[in-house]
Amino acid sequence: MSHPQCVGREAPGIWGLASGVGQWVPGSAGYQSSGLGRHFLAALPTAAIGTIALSVMAFSGRPFFNWICPRCAYTAISRKFTPAMNDSEQAPLIHEEGEVGFVEYQDFVYKEPFKFVSGGSLPGLTLRYETYGHLNTAKDNAILICHALSGDHHCAGVHGIEERKQGWWNFMVGPGKPIDTTRYFVICTNVLGGCQGSTGPGSINPETGKPYNLDFPKLTVKDMVKAQSLLIDSLGIDRLHAVIGGSMGGMQTMQWVIDFPERVGRYIALACGARHTAQAIAFNDTGRQAIISDPAWQQGHYDPEHGPDQGLAVARMMAHITYLSDVGMQSKFGRKRRVADESKEHFEVEFEVESYLRYQGASFVTRFDANAYLYLTKALDRFDLHSPKSLDATLSGVTAPGLVVGFTSDWLYPPQGNREIVEALLRLGKHATYAELAMDFGHDSFLVRSPQLYELIHRFLTR
Amino acid sequence: MSHPQCVGREAPGIWGLASGVGQWVPGSAGYQSSGLGRHFLAALPTAAIGTIALSVMAFSGRPFFNWICPRCAYTAISRKFTPAMNDSEQAPLIHEEGEVGFVEYQDFVYKEPFKFVSGGSLPGLTLRYETYGHLNTAKDNAILICHALSGDHHCAGVHGIEERKQGWWNFMVGPGKPIDTTRYFVICTNVLGGCQGSTGPGSINPETGKPYNLDFPKLTVKDMVKAQSLLIDSLGIDRLHAVIGGSMGGMQTMQWVIDFPERVGRYIALACGARHTAQAIAFNDTGRQAIISDPAWQQGHYDPEHGPDQGLAVARMMAHITYLSDVGMQSKFGRKRRVADESKEHFEVEFEVESYLRYQGASFVTRFDANAYLYLTKALDRFDLHSPKSLDATLSGVTAPGLVVGFTSDWLYPPQGNREIVEALLRLGKHATYAELAMDFGHDSFLVRSPQLYELIHRFLTR
Repeated sequence: MSHPQCVGREAPGIWGLASGVGQWVPGSAGYQSSGLGRHFLAALPTAAIGTIALSVMAFSGRPFFNWICPRCAYTAISRKFTPAMNDSEQAPLIHEEGEVGFVEYQDFVYKEPFKFVSGGSLPGLTLRYETYGHLNTAKDNAILICHALSGDHHCAGVHGIEERKQGWWNFMVGPGKPIDTTRYFVICTNVLGGCQGSTGPGSINPETGKPYNLDFPKLTVKDMVKAQSLLIDSLGIDRLHAVIGGSMGGMQTMQWVIDFPERVGRYIALACGARHTAQAIAFNDTGRQAIISDPAWQQGHYDPEHGPDQGLAVARMMAHITYLSDVGMQSKFGRKRRVADESKEHFEVEFEVESYLRYQGASFVTRFDANAYLYLTKALDRFDLHSPKSLDATLSGVTAPGLVVGFTSDWLYPPQGNREIVEALLRLGKHATYAELAMDFGHDSFLVRSPQLYELIHRFLTR
Repeated sequence: MSHPQCVGREAPGIWGLASGVGQWVPGSAGYQSSGLGRHFLAALPTAAIGTIALSVMAFSGRPFFNWICPRCAYTAISRKFTPAMNDSEQAPLIHEEGEVGFVEYQDFVYKEPFKFVSGGSLPGLTLRYETYGHLNTAKDNAILICHALSGDHHCAGVHGIEERKQGWWNFMVGPGKPIDTTRYFVICTNVLGGCQGSTGPGSINPETGKPYNLDFPKLTVKDMVKAQSLLIDSLGIDRLHAVIGGSMGGMQTMQWVIDFPERVGRYIALACGARHTAQAIAFNDTGRQAIISDPAWQQGHYDPEHGPDQGLAVARMMAHITYLSDVGMQSKFGRKRRVADESKEHFEVEFEVESYLRYQGASFVTRFDANAYLYLTKALDRFDLHSPKSLDATLSGVTAPGLVVGFTSDWLYPPQGNREIVEALLRLGKHATYAELAMDFGHDSFLVRSPQLYELIHRFLTR
């Protein structure tokens, strides 16, 4: 059996997973190959395949095979070994899912002045975005996906054979997936203030020829959403079928239905809240201090090639802990050691969890701008649906039906913070649903494959 | 009415709490002055008094007056306004408590080689310590108090009129207090590896004339306890009436009853656990990375006057969040702002909680050595009562009856980690009690005034 993207490109190949994982042959005991087709696994270096599988194994704690066809980016997933988060999640919804395949980003360039809530302004702006699926003639099948703090516009597919990294929500977006690209036209854009192609602190100010850095206006979630609305205008879309997002993306989602109630058909906000707790602000400010106190920050005027990498890495390490859960970390790492004890103290990696976190910090600085991190965390800290009057007052104009999802192990944006949004909406007589999923992956639960979450999103979008 | 230490030193004075708190006059409505006596409040600068009261008010969320007599260090506490943590804690145990008053530290100098678990050794060592109360002729009334990571030997009283800061457990230790110095001889020592007078990484290596820095041997809690046992030897004490400690002090306490079962009469371990979780290790390593990646660290060979202050401050800010609780921080700070919004981004203090944490970071570097922080956090991460065989095997030789206390809001060393110690002890047929206190102060709950905790400790010591 083939999948659409790869028709005519099939060739005999070898299925195999090498060192550390064992041989994996289609049709062999324990493996069901339906829906996979035959692809060039041989074209992938064996070590890389082993790594892909192993990394997923480490995360799920169970064998799980995930392979991308180098021709069409089709992802092979073993049915038998889907990663089980909870015993109740043993019945995957998706069987014959496909992939959006190769994707390219586009840049929306807005040449008019853009005014921020703070009063500051930009002479114009660019939003980098990707789309998947096709906009229908009625232009009423568009879904906007909003990304989290460290996310970007690349939420599904792969950019090319050389860059096989899948979009951050690839398992959620594609043909036959919960956000079904055979049905919907999906848009995902890097936020204003970001650093993945959209205008942010690191962008060149056309009026000075230099980066904005701290001259970039004070940023809010409302500004991000306003910029997105200009992109949606440019696509000729009056009304979105839905807006969806998790974490900072959930805040954008809420801001959309508050600021543009007539333009949103329905919405799903995941792992978010009406505002940051003192603890969340405290963690963010500690991360900011790590960056700002790095001498390389230079009051924000660093050379992009020599930014405050050390400070940003520490900020990311700390933040990353807050995205996981105690139980999840214990199950994934426990007290596993990397090296034998030595009598001399050295402060190099000793425990597995240290290695993991240091890697997270080091890799983050290769893809993220420190000033953008400062601005975005500030936007999160300032987001407050209880202000200026009350949560009920802020939500009073919402018209679309909504789904808000909290995760039991999320201690950064705890379930209660999600629930109170729905409680307010219900008090106001709105159509709103709150769902709480029992998962051990902490705040990042919405980024983890979960048949329960698939089911929730799929059903809410199509009901 | 007077208290013992100040007899004959009384003089008329003015009672008052100035700006921000309002006037406070003994005998006036709402205040009960019994047990206070008349002292020289006038000798204290008004602003300082206001600050003392205000800081406690902010913490407890209720008015609370705490004043130290500059003559004898007697602490005045308003009965009516004792800080209530929970409604169930409205009945303070202590009425006519006194103070240990002025105290002086002493240095125990051990001139023999000291060998570490790691195999490393020191040619000798110094432990700085304080004692309160009197050792009886039978030498069987000594209590050893073990401090937490950032604590020291100064756990009660004040050092002088110029340095009015009370010891870190002053409310717990003193005449008539739960650890009653009219009855017990109390010893508290700065740990080996510390930086408050005991030998640590910052101490001068007599063989080189330079600081040990990273030549200091790899440190464990077992080493700390072994060094303490030498001090106890030097005082001529065979057997301690009790060993008590919270957090890292709780780990030392457990190590005492494991390594020296015949020398401990009873023990109380608070807010600790049998070993660090992956999350606790992750936070510690992130703090260490903040220090190590500060260019001023210089591979540990920094000038003590110009150490990695920025990194250490960030490490402390982060750690401090883990010592509190979400609920506690929300109640104390919420989203209170310090400054009005401005259109320009600056990353200065905006929220109260940022101000508080930055202050915690900045003040910590004035009293703590970065290398000591690295060594002590490593000792904590490596502490593991499940190793080398099992928790039960490690605890099998314990003979003393013990009390272990967990705190409901402690997410750094969660209640379960405390409880499992007692569960193991009970499985082994030992005398052990587990108590769990419902307090909102997180891991730091054991450092907060709580009649429930007073009661537990008082009764366990005297039963």
